[in-house]
Formats: sequence, structure tokens, C-alpha cells
Amino acid sequence: MHDSVNLAEKLALFDEHWSPRTVAEFNGHDVMVVKVKGEFNWHSHADTDDFFLVLEGQIDIELRDRTVTLNPGEMFIVPKGAEHRPVARQEAHLLLIEPTGTPNTGDPETAAKRQCV
Amino acid sequence: MHDSVNLAEKLALFDEHWSPRTVAEFNGHDVMVVKVKGEFNWHSHADTDDFFLVLEGQIDIELRDRTVTLNPGEMFIVPKGAEHRPVARQEAHLLLIEPTGTPNTGDPETAAKRQCV
Repeated sequence: MHDSVNLAEKLALFDEHWSPRTVAEFNGHDVMVVKVKGEFNWHSHADTDDFFLVLEGQIDIELRDRTVTLNPGEMFIVPKGAEHRPVARQEAHLLLIEPTGTPNTGDPETAAKRQCV
Repeated sequence: MHDSVNLAEKLALFDEHWSPRTVAEFNGHDVMVVKVKGEFNWHSHADTDDFFLVLEGQIDIELRDRTVTLNPGEMFIVPKGAEHRPVARQEAHLLLIEPTGTPNTGDPETAAKRQCV
């Protein structure tokens, strides 16, 4: 995994939504790209902040008290413990960073399996 | 710091080269934007990987055994302990992530001061 990573090339390798692909490892974290569309589930991560950067499209990150809208080149850190729900009205492409092993849904039972590309 | 961050807007706030600005905090790390031009110094970080994502322009990350060239939308993780020297022939804009307090030069004596924007 010690090569340069072209994020658009990695995103072109798959079509599934809400199925992050790990493209690099960094200080115990997975750096991931993901395609999203529609509404995800409300969830939180007790032990980790959640890094979102929009590469293409637009997402709303709904929090319990407000909604943060992100366009390309915009990022947001969901603080650990904060309930949130990502919503994409059209397909959007994101860069995510989370500690390796973090369940994307907040629940290991329903989480996407770790996949590298 | 719990707002959305537009990276281009943050980069428009300063002109200095090799002077990273912290735009968010994430799991004990600073998320930073930086403008670079010319040759930085050879250095390494014994305890942390080094995250580079090019937002605009091009950089070479010289390693002792090879050079990794990055264009916009391309990223590279310099593994901890690896000596490296970033070189930008023209001005480039980068997203960097490092544990808060990591000296950008590898040496606290010569490191840029932490600045938030």
C-alpha cells in the first residue's frame, strides 16, 4: 500500500453505494473512498471522530440539531459520540478516514466488510 | 472547529509557503492546508506516518530510493521513519494530516508554529 493513490481511479473500480474501499493506511486508520446515494442510517461512533471530504457531488450530514451540507472540496469532522446521518440526494463521492475496524454503520453486525482496492 | 471547512476558502486566507494552517482536528491529528513551492528539507518523523493529498498543482515527494509524483486528487502516505523531501516546481496546494504537535520539518527547533485558520 506504499504507492501513490489516484482517488478517481480507485472510485472507477466499483459502483456499489455505501461500501467504502480502503486505499491507504495511516496511523492505524483506513483512508477510504466511497460512493453514496440516498439515506444512510442514524449512527454514532463512541470512540472516534469521523472524517468526511466530498470529492464529487453533494451530501448532507444530518446531526440531531442541524444539517451540514458539503460540496466538492468541503470537509467536516463529526465529533465522536455525535449521532449523524449522511444523506446524498444524487450520487456523491467521498474520502473517509476512520480507525481501522470502525463499523461504518456504528454497529459491527450491520457494517460493510473491509475491502481494499 | 465543528463547522464545515471549504479548503479553497481557507487557502485563500494566506500566501506563505511551507506554513501549514490547521483547519480541523481529528482524533488527535491536525488537518491542515498548505501552499508549497520549491524544495523543502529532507526529514523524517519517527513516530507518525505523513499524509499528503494534492488539491492543486503538482509535487514530487522524494524518498531515498525513488520519487513519487502527485497531481490533484492523488495522495501518498509517507511511512513513519522514512526520510523524504517534498519538492514543488510550481506552487501547489496540499491537504496534510499529522498528529497535533508534529514538527513539519521533523525538528521542533526549525518547525513552523501551529496556526489555525
